[in-house]
Amino acid sequence: MLTELRREAYEANIALPRLGLINLTFGNASAVDRRQGIFAIKPSGVPYEDLTPDSMVLVDMEGKTVEGKLRPSSDAPTHRCLFLSFEAIGSVVHTHSSHATAFAQAGRAIPNLGTTHADYFNGEVPVTRRMTEAEIAGAYEWETGRVIVETLSGRSVEELPGVLVYRHAPFSWGASAAKAVENSVAIECVAHMALMTLSLAPDISPIEPELLRRHFFRKHGAGAYYGQGGGSC
Amino acid sequence: MLTELRREAYEANIALPRLGLINLTFGNASAVDRRQGIFAIKPSGVPYEDLTPDSMVLVDMEGKTVEGKLRPSSDAPTHRCLFLSFEAIGSVVHTHSSHATAFAQAGRAIPNLGTTHADYFNGEVPVTRRMTEAEIAGAYEWETGRVIVETLSGRSVEELPGVLVYRHAPFSWGASAAKAVENSVAIECVAHMALMTLSLAPDISPIEPELLRRHFFRKHGAGAYYGQGGGSC
Amino acid sequence: MLTELRREAYEANIALPRLGLINLTFGNASAVDRRQGIFAIKPSGVPYEDLTPDSMVLVDMEGKTVEGKLRPSSDAPTHRCLFLSFEAIGSVVHTHSSHATAFAQAGRAIPNLGTTHADYFNGEVPVTRRMTEAEIAGAYEWETGRVIVETLSGRSVEELPGVLVYRHAPFSWGASAAKAVENSVAIECVAHMALMTLSLAPDISPIEPELLRRHFFRKHGAGAYYGQGGGSC
Amino acid sequence: MLTELRREAYEANIALPRLGLINLTFGNASAVDRRQGIFAIKPSGVPYEDLTPDSMVLVDMEGKTVEGKLRPSSDAPTHRCLFLSFEAIGSVVHTHSSHATAFAQAGRAIPNLGTTHADYFNGEVPVTRRMTEAEIAGAYEWETGRVIVETLSGRSVEELPGVLVYRHAPFSWGASAAKAVENSVAIECVAHMALMTLSLAPDISPIEPELLRRHFFRKHGAGAYYGQGGGSC
Repeated sequence: MLTELRREAYEANIALPRLGLINLTFGNASAVDRRQGIFAIKPSGVPYEDLTPDSMVLVDMEGKTVEGKLRPSSDAPTHRCLFLSFEAIGSVVHTHSSHATAFAQAGRAIPNLGTTHADYFNGEVPVTRRMTEAEIAGAYEWETGRVIVETLSGRSVEELPGVLVYRHAPFSWGASAAKAVENSVAIECVAHMALMTLSLAPDISPIEPELLRRHFFRKHGAGAYYGQGGGSC
Repeated sequence: MLTELRREAYEANIALPRLGLINLTFGNASAVDRRQGIFAIKPSGVPYEDLTPDSMVLVDMEGKTVEGKLRPSSDAPTHRCLFLSFEAIGSVVHTHSSHATAFAQAGRAIPNLGTTHADYFNGEVPVTRRMTEAEIAGAYEWETGRVIVETLSGRSVEELPGVLVYRHAPFSWGASAAKAVENSVAIECVAHMALMTLSLAPDISPIEPELLRRHFFRKHGAGAYYGQGGGSC
Repeated sequence: MLTELRREAYEANIALPRLGLINLTFGNASAVDRRQGIFAIKPSGVPYEDLTPDSMVLVDMEGKTVEGKLRPSSDAPTHRCLFLSFEAIGSVVHTHSSHATAFAQAGRAIPNLGTTHADYFNGEVPVTRRMTEAEIAGAYEWETGRVIVETLSGRSVEELPGVLVYRHAPFSWGASAAKAVENSVAIECVAHMALMTLSLAPDISPIEPELLRRHFFRKHGAGAYYGQGGGSC
Repeated sequence: MLTELRREAYEANIALPRLGLINLTFGNASAVDRRQGIFAIKPSGVPYEDLTPDSMVLVDMEGKTVEGKLRPSSDAPTHRCLFLSFEAIGSVVHTHSSHATAFAQAGRAIPNLGTTHADYFNGEVPVTRRMTEAEIAGAYEWETGRVIVETLSGRSVEELPGVLVYRHAPFSWGASAAKAVENSVAIECVAHMALMTLSLAPDISPIEPELLRRHFFRKHGAGAYYGQGGGSC
């Protein structure tokens, strides 16, 4: 069932350690089939080298495992919340990539300091607010999804293809799993650059608005002229 | 004799350079057979690429080499002290992994700043006190073990799966050699993240207690729901 | 057409990720045939692993694509501007290598702090001025080339084989594509070293002029005695 | 002629990029035959992947090339000066390894901050004084050797197996080429750790003398008990 969806989720998951985004078993990727209302996600705690397309777990939009012998990632409710909240996304990726996680732990957004960042984000990479004790004690992973949605506060998922969860780590998304993975690479990359930029210029302001716009919109939206056509996010 | 134990220790030792935890020949792993009262450990100063299961040295609980043509690691008395002090551990790993060693050299514990750390440690990664001149001049490696035990001061080895030795480097442990190695990866990983977090937010407080508890206990103890079952440490 | 030129540009492009200079698809290399007035450049947005010599796009000195099914890199006008301005260069390379980009984002030149730098640059690696809103809104990529030319202000391309574009990233050049790639490696390398040197000695002055001269001219110009003969840049 | 010596020098040279100590073509290793008064050294400016044992250049103690079609490394006079000054060394290695070079550029010795460092150096890794204009304008590479010798000021090459040359980079040595390479790895490793330690504790003092002694002499000299016997340096 859903062989292609399993494969897409599988490819995204095994890309994460290869791209240097994963330490230990921290991280997971999912891909959704909107018509069936089912997403495929990494099984919990399984080493990446043991994954196969068949080991992906299929979960429906009520959170029920519909196929798979293994438990889904403990973060599955976060993915589900994001799929339910954002119709435009086809995949969610979560990593603990080192530099982005450092910003999350510091409770700081990644400021948009240059064109590398502006090619991906129309603004900073925001950080969620501190969760309440009730949210943490309750349906913690679902609430994590909700606080991410709250942080976007109506901004489009194309303009903000990821956020940092406070004290935790980044989540990203995209129209496809390949795009969601690419966005998680971009977040780690701009976090690394921002960390070094801030050490060179602690009081640096964000990129000038005209330069941000130019770079973001040469890659996204109707006027995009980067790449070989075929759109963005 | 103890073929399986030798293999377990061997696999742990050769994992260390592959995981980027070792510079030069700094580091060693051991595994204990509790019934026989014998542990297998890396021979001293031998390059990792020359190791074989047969080159592991078997040492008993009095510190006597019971099998092996080579001298055991000069750190063997530290391992022995930890095996004698903590019944629950099956393996000890010592590395000079760069970021964790930086904290050890600075004499600072690794503060628990996020969920990556909280998934492994129910608190900070503590640093031992400065050893006395008598301890250093005497049975130095045995005393190193004793100061580690002192630092745990009754905390469980499940909640504190490793410490930093002052001016030296990390030691970690686990129920199995694979788990002890994983804990040494975790220590290096959280040290790296903490170093960057502190550069972004020098006065950051530790992770909120409710978030620490949630993450630590979703992976450890009776209420754990991370992974595919089968327990923790 | 221009098989050899395509191959030279192709080899330079695929060298960039192998040398660790590229994140995602950020970066491109070109090589020019001066007699024909044509340069070969990476197609826009194509992953490096999918490149072939045939996928290189041939562009003439008016900016017209003369051969190739794909669109050229969106940065092609920057390359073209540099080829038109500097007769001595045979290749241009653009990367977003992490450490050099950090300096560009901070708006700081890379100071010349040691002999590694002095072996390649007769001075600092300068950073361009902030571009005007008109330049950014207009022929942005062409204007990027012009602001690079302005920054050299008559210095030779042998003495300054690269610059940082403000808020953006490095561009480098050389007599051959191999040399332009080597210069982009050198820029990243000295940026990394400078970042660390500045953290150890925030108020450090540049390298002493006599040592700068000695190192630069032992590798460049008529009196060079480094290497096996055959010149520089 | 001197096939074994060529091979030893060759193996040391190709080890340098494999160990991550080399950027571009910065670095060279040599090995000496004391009986013949000849050393083998890397040819100047040749990429490491093109080296063979036969491409090593043989140079005598007057600096004359006695065999080899290529020019020797431009740093050959530095190696020669060290071989003439220190009878106990069989090999010299020079790299521009990034972290050690950062200390050299900052004009700071690498302080001895922990046991990793103490296992190799009985004290800090010193930095040479600034060279005079006359020294730089004259026989620069030979004078570089002399200022290294001056920096040791009678300390033994066993206790100080390397130094940083001011504004330049590290040189190391050892009884064998393998040992000289190992010492260059150690210098880079302790530089990396020291840089991070200083960011965590800017006013840290050096390692306690009793701990320095214990670690240095458990690996070096008559009382050494680390390794499988067979001595040190």
